[in-house]
Amino acid sequence: LALSEPELSRLSHQGEALLTRSESLLVSQMMRDTPFLVVDRQRLERNLCAMHEHATTIGVSLRPHAKTHKSPDIARLQLQHGAVGLTVATVGEAECMVELAACTDLFIAFPLWAVGLRAQRLCALARKARLRVGVDSVDAVQRLAAAVGAGGADAAPLAVAVEIDCGHHRSGVPPERAAEIASAAIALGLVVDGVFTFPGHSYAAGMRERAAADEVVALKTARDLLVAAGIPCPVVSGGSTPSVAFVSSSSSVLTEIRPGVFCFGDAQQFELGSIAASDIALTAHATVVSRRDGVAIVDAGSKILGADRPAYASGFGRVLDCLEARIVALSEHHATIHFGSAEVPALGSVLRIVPNHVCNAVNLVDELVVRGAADESVWRVAARGKNV
Amino acid sequence: LALSEPELSRLSHQGEALLTRSESLLVSQMMRDTPFLVVDRQRLERNLCAMHEHATTIGVSLRPHAKTHKSPDIARLQLQHGAVGLTVATVGEAECMVELAACTDLFIAFPLWAVGLRAQRLCALARKARLRVGVDSVDAVQRLAAAVGAGGADAAPLAVAVEIDCGHHRSGVPPERAAEIASAAIALGLVVDGVFTFPGHSYAAGMRERAAADEVVALKTARDLLVAAGIPCPVVSGGSTPSVAFVSSSSSVLTEIRPGVFCFGDAQQFELGSIAASDIALTAHATVVSRRDGVAIVDAGSKILGADRPAYASGFGRVLDCLEARIVALSEHHATIHFGSAEVPALGSVLRIVPNHVCNAVNLVDELVVRGAADESVWRVAARGKNV
Repeated sequence: LALSEPELSRLSHQGEALLTRSESLLVSQMMRDTPFLVVDRQRLERNLCAMHEHATTIGVSLRPHAKTHKSPDIARLQLQHGAVGLTVATVGEAECMVELAACTDLFIAFPLWAVGLRAQRLCALARKARLRVGVDSVDAVQRLAAAVGAGGADAAPLAVAVEIDCGHHRSGVPPERAAEIASAAIALGLVVDGVFTFPGHSYAAGMRERAAADEVVALKTARDLLVAAGIPCPVVSGGSTPSVAFVSSSSSVLTEIRPGVFCFGDAQQFELGSIAASDIALTAHATVVSRRDGVAIVDAGSKILGADRPAYASGFGRVLDCLEARIVALSEHHATIHFGSAEVPALGSVLRIVPNHVCNAVNLVDELVVRGAADESVWRVAARGKNV
Repeated sequence: LALSEPELSRLSHQGEALLTRSESLLVSQMMRDTPFLVVDRQRLERNLCAMHEHATTIGVSLRPHAKTHKSPDIARLQLQHGAVGLTVATVGEAECMVELAACTDLFIAFPLWAVGLRAQRLCALARKARLRVGVDSVDAVQRLAAAVGAGGADAAPLAVAVEIDCGHHRSGVPPERAAEIASAAIALGLVVDGVFTFPGHSYAAGMRERAAADEVVALKTARDLLVAAGIPCPVVSGGSTPSVAFVSSSSSVLTEIRPGVFCFGDAQQFELGSIAASDIALTAHATVVSRRDGVAIVDAGSKILGADRPAYASGFGRVLDCLEARIVALSEHHATIHFGSAEVPALGSVLRIVPNHVCNAVNLVDELVVRGAADESVWRVAARGKNV
């Protein structure tokens, strides 16, 4: 349902009180300047439920990664659905989720180097919520222990988990080094929760199942070595949105999964095969501002979609309303879309663009427009830009 | 100059009043949590002067693109150096630069589709500052004319420039269509300033000179057709940071150039050959949080550097302190750096990372840390996220 331009203009100049509820909603929707990010609330809820069901089925805890949405509203929904806590990437995200989502159990799944202000902030936060931090070196463990005064009478409680490299080759140690780092942490007075990994090599064509298998092997080796060294290992944490479907109760050692993107989905997940187009819950609404034969330019570029463009991707995102179209180029405020044999939308049309990587898209805006069946709300991206 | 960790800890817990000025500066610099963006003020000023000298030498006006810095402080410096006004990409950027940089002459170099709130905001802005907007269709011209009430007694003054495609194949019309669109604008009561193009195909290996030549040919054709149709064409506007060095007074028809990136430079410009490493004025300061043979991981990822990775690039940015290193992968909060035969920096070292595309990096932060020879200020990225 839409209004003609003259009708919109007439209604938008009328007092709000003179409009019916549905007219008012329509006017506010049509007056919103593109580009902006829209969350389909029904799809969001469906995605949350599906992941919780999966976690329950395979018998693991779900600790969703809040870096994707950076939204206390969505964090609260996740906790209500039964998440045991949240995963975050930075102290700033953790601070935000403690303050605004009342989250009391957080895993900063990043090898923090705790010096300067960061050390002071971490210590303060560890007194407010249960905190676990990733480690992959004895040096980092020493800084963390110093930051919270571990071993002292007034120490702030802090747990760590040893990061294992299972094939992504980013941070993390080989499984064989897990016990060395865990022992150092215990010696310095920290709690060791266990081990974790990020099977990020699931983000490549055809690699989802293989990454999930690598994850199991690496985590099992690390856990067994900890236990053999007399170190209990209650937490064995893994999981990424592309790989998590291949985690099963029979084959797995995992006790916890940490997917993030699943709440919204994005063009990467669609092209990797881990989400259906009909489940994608976040799009950028963008206006056709220029067109020629076979081509339209919309006003959403890398400053709202992000510039991610992995090797396996078909382009810089997808057009939800025309999956055969290809986004062949992205400037900061333009997407160049080739429609092939499909009809090129008229100037002024609003298209729904799926970003390649939704985490980076969300981090570009201050607000998400959340549309339900018959209503619209605005949710704050409160942890946007919290890089430290 | 740096402090040891115990010394930093001791000084940071001392009262500010007990520190000397240089101790205080050092403590505040060392206590700042990474990652953050730092502007080298001397290099910034040098880059601004160099571009103004170039514009003067070739006899064109300089209208720098503010999308790069989104900073009223830098906009004011550019206007003080003699810029005739600013270029921006959105109404929101224009509003910001009018309000906070007291800019009175703006070119929104984008084919705006002026409906809804955008139309109302554009009209209000056109009463506060001299405003020029890009157009590439008669339909868009009609919306703009309606937005400002063109032709009516109470019209807000608005100028347009016709966008020409000179080879980048984004928005813009072929030169042959310039007069058709300019005529429509005049018939509807808008002012036509002239023609413009963005030679964006300069952003490809070895294409800088060719793009500058294409720009001249396309703009000359369009201008001559306008003049032949009896339409004056005082403004012939072009220029991108990679191509602008190839604009000369003898060969060119340009009256105005609109580079943006030149104020900072970035890894793209360095690799395209349009800036020396010693002139790069903006870096992300990032800490080594993980290391292994030949590899270091720093805590700057796509959420502070942006995810741009053009085909010609050597990686996801460059390490200013070690140009032989390669940033082979980027996650949201990790950069994976291969050092080859160079020494891998110690854990906790702070490295200066040059983003591939500085415009997208700046748009991820709220503040720039600006360091002079002996002082430090913080400048607001006031137009961050102004996508509409």
